[in-house]
Amino acid sequence: MNPKLKMGIVGGGGIGTVHQMAARLDGKIELVAGAFSSTAERSKRSGEQLGLHPSRVHDDYRTMAAEEAELPADERIDFVSIVTPNHLHFPVAKAFLGAGFNVVCDKPMTFDLAEALELRGLVKKSGKVFASTYNYTGYPMVKEAREIVRRGELGKVLKVVTEYPQGWLLNPLEAKGQEQAWRNDPSKAGATGCLSDIGTHVEHLARYVTGLEIDELCADFTKFGAGQRLEDDANLLVHNRGGTRGIIHCSKISAGEENRLNIRAYGTHASLEWDQEHPNELILKYPDASRRTLRRGNEYVSGTAKRVTRLVRGQPEGFIEAFANLYLEAARAIRAETSGQSIPEGCDFPNVEDGVTGMAFVETAVESATNGGAWTKMKGA
Amino acid sequence: MNPKLKMGIVGGGGIGTVHQMAARLDGKIELVAGAFSSTAERSKRSGEQLGLHPSRVHDDYRTMAAEEAELPADERIDFVSIVTPNHLHFPVAKAFLGAGFNVVCDKPMTFDLAEALELRGLVKKSGKVFASTYNYTGYPMVKEAREIVRRGELGKVLKVVTEYPQGWLLNPLEAKGQEQAWRNDPSKAGATGCLSDIGTHVEHLARYVTGLEIDELCADFTKFGAGQRLEDDANLLVHNRGGTRGIIHCSKISAGEENRLNIRAYGTHASLEWDQEHPNELILKYPDASRRTLRRGNEYVSGTAKRVTRLVRGQPEGFIEAFANLYLEAARAIRAETSGQSIPEGCDFPNVEDGVTGMAFVETAVESATNGGAWTKMKGA
Amino acid sequence: MNPKLKMGIVGGGGIGTVHQMAARLDGKIELVAGAFSSTAERSKRSGEQLGLHPSRVHDDYRTMAAEEAELPADERIDFVSIVTPNHLHFPVAKAFLGAGFNVVCDKPMTFDLAEALELRGLVKKSGKVFASTYNYTGYPMVKEAREIVRRGELGKVLKVVTEYPQGWLLNPLEAKGQEQAWRNDPSKAGATGCLSDIGTHVEHLARYVTGLEIDELCADFTKFGAGQRLEDDANLLVHNRGGTRGIIHCSKISAGEENRLNIRAYGTHASLEWDQEHPNELILKYPDASRRTLRRGNEYVSGTAKRVTRLVRGQPEGFIEAFANLYLEAARAIRAETSGQSIPEGCDFPNVEDGVTGMAFVETAVESATNGGAWTKMKGA
Amino acid sequence: MNPKLKMGIVGGGGIGTVHQMAARLDGKIELVAGAFSSTAERSKRSGEQLGLHPSRVHDDYRTMAAEEAELPADERIDFVSIVTPNHLHFPVAKAFLGAGFNVVCDKPMTFDLAEALELRGLVKKSGKVFASTYNYTGYPMVKEAREIVRRGELGKVLKVVTEYPQGWLLNPLEAKGQEQAWRNDPSKAGATGCLSDIGTHVEHLARYVTGLEIDELCADFTKFGAGQRLEDDANLLVHNRGGTRGIIHCSKISAGEENRLNIRAYGTHASLEWDQEHPNELILKYPDASRRTLRRGNEYVSGTAKRVTRLVRGQPEGFIEAFANLYLEAARAIRAETSGQSIPEGCDFPNVEDGVTGMAFVETAVESATNGGAWTKMKGA
Repeated sequence: MNPKLKMGIVGGGGIGTVHQMAARLDGKIELVAGAFSSTAERSKRSGEQLGLHPSRVHDDYRTMAAEEAELPADERIDFVSIVTPNHLHFPVAKAFLGAGFNVVCDKPMTFDLAEALELRGLVKKSGKVFASTYNYTGYPMVKEAREIVRRGELGKVLKVVTEYPQGWLLNPLEAKGQEQAWRNDPSKAGATGCLSDIGTHVEHLARYVTGLEIDELCADFTKFGAGQRLEDDANLLVHNRGGTRGIIHCSKISAGEENRLNIRAYGTHASLEWDQEHPNELILKYPDASRRTLRRGNEYVSGTAKRVTRLVRGQPEGFIEAFANLYLEAARAIRAETSGQSIPEGCDFPNVEDGVTGMAFVETAVESATNGGAWTKMKGA
Repeated sequence: MNPKLKMGIVGGGGIGTVHQMAARLDGKIELVAGAFSSTAERSKRSGEQLGLHPSRVHDDYRTMAAEEAELPADERIDFVSIVTPNHLHFPVAKAFLGAGFNVVCDKPMTFDLAEALELRGLVKKSGKVFASTYNYTGYPMVKEAREIVRRGELGKVLKVVTEYPQGWLLNPLEAKGQEQAWRNDPSKAGATGCLSDIGTHVEHLARYVTGLEIDELCADFTKFGAGQRLEDDANLLVHNRGGTRGIIHCSKISAGEENRLNIRAYGTHASLEWDQEHPNELILKYPDASRRTLRRGNEYVSGTAKRVTRLVRGQPEGFIEAFANLYLEAARAIRAETSGQSIPEGCDFPNVEDGVTGMAFVETAVESATNGGAWTKMKGA
Repeated sequence: MNPKLKMGIVGGGGIGTVHQMAARLDGKIELVAGAFSSTAERSKRSGEQLGLHPSRVHDDYRTMAAEEAELPADERIDFVSIVTPNHLHFPVAKAFLGAGFNVVCDKPMTFDLAEALELRGLVKKSGKVFASTYNYTGYPMVKEAREIVRRGELGKVLKVVTEYPQGWLLNPLEAKGQEQAWRNDPSKAGATGCLSDIGTHVEHLARYVTGLEIDELCADFTKFGAGQRLEDDANLLVHNRGGTRGIIHCSKISAGEENRLNIRAYGTHASLEWDQEHPNELILKYPDASRRTLRRGNEYVSGTAKRVTRLVRGQPEGFIEAFANLYLEAARAIRAETSGQSIPEGCDFPNVEDGVTGMAFVETAVESATNGGAWTKMKGA
Repeated sequence: MNPKLKMGIVGGGGIGTVHQMAARLDGKIELVAGAFSSTAERSKRSGEQLGLHPSRVHDDYRTMAAEEAELPADERIDFVSIVTPNHLHFPVAKAFLGAGFNVVCDKPMTFDLAEALELRGLVKKSGKVFASTYNYTGYPMVKEAREIVRRGELGKVLKVVTEYPQGWLLNPLEAKGQEQAWRNDPSKAGATGCLSDIGTHVEHLARYVTGLEIDELCADFTKFGAGQRLEDDANLLVHNRGGTRGIIHCSKISAGEENRLNIRAYGTHASLEWDQEHPNELILKYPDASRRTLRRGNEYVSGTAKRVTRLVRGQPEGFIEAFANLYLEAARAIRAETSGQSIPEGCDFPNVEDGVTGMAFVETAVESATNGGAWTKMKGA
């Protein structure tokens, strides 16, 4: 067996914990280093709690990139996971790419599109692996959905309805948590609130499943919450290239909704439906045949879905497994890179291009919303 | 007991049968006359099958209005139900109102907004009862939803998502049925296909439940089907008066969808969710309390919902009962009118104003769609 | 068109209203006479409210049978519906059969098995139509389930789980309604409470769908409610002829359950699942293929289901339609009988044999429960 | 931070992998040793794949117990997880307890009740921690259900329906897998097939949630599958102490069912419902109030459920997290034991008593089934 891949982390908070669980689940990745906070003191405390060697708990990301790079090849990290607020994604990624490390980076990929385009150039130049954690496309039944579209079972896709309602900004306790404050600060979150945080997941899910690119869109943003500096509700009509129509809406003020990301893709032959809150099922509907429900873990699902399946049917998998699938696939590429081999075909994880498209989507929507919801061509990526 | 109300019908086909069942269910309305087809011969045959007296089976609607008006008061019809293609709604309604009859009329109310406004004037002048068969708001749990909004349980409504996907135009057998051909003929159906047929139900449902009026909208129409002369898919963003945001989409090319009209209304305190295909339930969600499912027939539902409930809980009611509720409520008004009394307060059926609003909605959307999806103010009703 | 069938009713209450709605729905049956209560005065009042001619509102069932029989053939009732408490089913049925009338009778068919066997003899001798209102097998998707079993799609049925939990006896208001008092009186309800009232529906549903007969059973009865003189909860293990295993449980003290009659039949090739509270769907599961959901109103369902379908797919049908289907099918037979023709093949309604089996089931379970839950052979029917 | 607990494993196969993932998820347990197979060669290969040091990969469990015991305290395992076929649970547990190790043992706990009683004695004498992996009671919403019952929200529990249908024995591929062969061998699986494998989960789930003990039961076993030497379907009626009635059924021949363990507990005030295939929800029903759905991760769930919750609401947790919760809770006890402290109050994991009750349940059911389904008193545990 190969030794475990060595992982470093920049950033902290709840999402950091999730990344750790996901990375740990399969026993192939080991957390060895980190810069866990904006202060050296808190970083130290976090590292201690995680049982890391003090020498690997760094004061800040710059120090970390530099110090890790100086370690012997078999000691230093194989990749860094960036789980900071949005405005730090780019500088941190740049620092680690520059120091010769592979990168896993939270979404939205950067603060704005300009950074995204620059990052794309840096990644290409570096030859390193860059993964963007659109984790929801890690679910086996999302991969199954994509396979079904690719096999043509839906016929030509005519319409795609994709939703992501949440309600937590209506819950004062959750909304005002210290940890979330940066999300309402345009100097840290970027030009949008709801759209960059969850809307980019929607865009990626729709594109991943259907393979369709947005051609133009019309966006309607609203700030409902008292004190909201960025929109907390975003509704979009979409024209995809090739004529497919789309609806995208996402919200953080939809009372009682938890994390109801879902997609419905309607084709000429059939339609499919998937809901993140019931992720082990995929529903297919036909104009004149009985409905089918495909369930994770069965023999009849495609090899693509099986490859990222850990448990037998009827033993529910969830969010962590989907997140872990992203890490598994990225790890295959990283392992190749660190071994000096070429990255294997078919590593299935969102990359820097996906991150760029996400930022182009955000900026196009901002332009539309700013222009009173005018139809706006997707910014060139 | 009062004698049954006497009903006449103009038009035929499947929807006529539904109107008849709905009218018959409670044993308070009796079909006695009709002009069932565009040809006298077919009308006669239909009347015969229905067991009507030949003298009450009329050749056409004009003859019917005239001949019924000449019958003694205790023999002639108390009201007419109009179930023709759209372009005939107005002339038939005008003829019967003119002949002194109450009218129940299918939706969309008229061919265009101009007719709708004229019809409104005629109804007002006549003093007769006019009901527009937006039948989906007849469901008890839709009435319960409206009560819940009225009582303020949702707080201020921020966002309303209303959908009506169907897929039958993808099914050649159903789509090409002779009976449906007029739906694709702009000279009979009007300026829209999908929107006037099912989109008007969506508009009414959202307005009925939330009490909110549309201020402006942005519409995106598509003709997907080969040979479609009118749009078969319509997606809209909506601004309601008072700042509430809305999404409305309806479609006839959504493969495998049957009749999935549904609404989600999100308020500051709670949200509600209702789905026509599971009409006996109403779901309430809260930012930080467990979800509630209210079920028809229980003691805890409001008097408004109970008044239109026939069966005990757990004995499912369906489409016919909802439709019959519209007839029951209209019948209360008609019985008053024919008895020379004033129409009782609180008769809960869609009226000519609702019909006008529906047509204003359609024409506003047409204007927006024609102008490339520009945001367009709701036409004055 | 044939004139409507003329219906009489013996008994009243809520279930009488349901029978009337069901009979009325299709416009082929007309209520013309009745003895609606145990007192002549209340019967008169009911008849008046129903708009019946006073001469057809009878003081009691004996008078009614005699007086109706004396009317001219084209005036008198074509059949009587018996909706009295259980102990009256037999004498009323006997009186009307004796007077030459067809009979529709509520379930359980009789007070005990001895009466049921005698009634079977009377029906056979009379040559009249006798229908037993196991109304839940009137649902189209129950008929579809039966077709699927008949076509062998499940393979050999190995196990059948059938449930009927209700909770209304925990609700003091409902449980203590005057109208329900007889249900707790062994001199009127018979030897069982829960089992005869709802357990017989379970037995019929399982037998109707699978075609399997009970060979032996083991029954566990409990009286949970204060003041209950008859069991309000009954759990049974069942051996069917041919080796199929069964579980049957029914209850009136299952808090919050409304009317959750449901069946799961597991075969060697596939299984099916149907739930009365979601009656428009039938679910099929396979050992290694995706699940299928069949929905009422689609082209792909069998002719048997289509024949009893009124509304297009997506327009929910419910309890009344299922009940009306029983009346429709019985009416076909009654119309033949009154016309002196032989009863057409394939009239699909529960008959006197089904009623006898139901009573045999009840008495067998009583014997088992009385003997401490001993396995007991099904009483010869 | 404390160093990770050191885990050893005896046995292999799929369930071993699940134990490893569960133990690994939280980063507090580390696999360091094992005897992974019945042959030394295959054990070595497994250990290698897992990246263990060769000195810690043992030829068999006896060697492992002896060799691990000789290691320094800070190197040797803190506990062993036993994931062998049933007949080996007892000897392996005995060996490791004897060598001074804490034990986590798969269910059913032993081959028969006699062994279980002996093991109980050994555990008591040893003072070691013993956990029995009834993993399904590790779900947060199962713990929430238990809290709700304890708080009296259901009132007195009257009836409990618990089911565990699976269908995999109908799937020749799965049923005949080499790894599963021992399940059909009475010398390895014990006196029952379906009941010990999944029925013991049912017994534990019902007892865990309601706190009720079985008083007597009546069992019906069937061998449906060709070549089945042990029952593959088991149906039981149950009397609990205190008068509560129960139904338990489990099956491996229920076509298309995957892993549908579920429980419904009906009390005088309310009922609850939980389904392993939708584990993040718990449904409460009331005689006359709207239904409630409680969802994992919300503020409103009890501290007990929160303590074993990793992800925010709407991010589905699944099977692995439930399993990991058992390990987390057992680890708290083991950490105390290895530190020479007393085991903390409220460690919530199934222990040797639960294992004994499970075996008593199995043997009581066997006696009943053997005696033709006679009601049989629960064997003294």
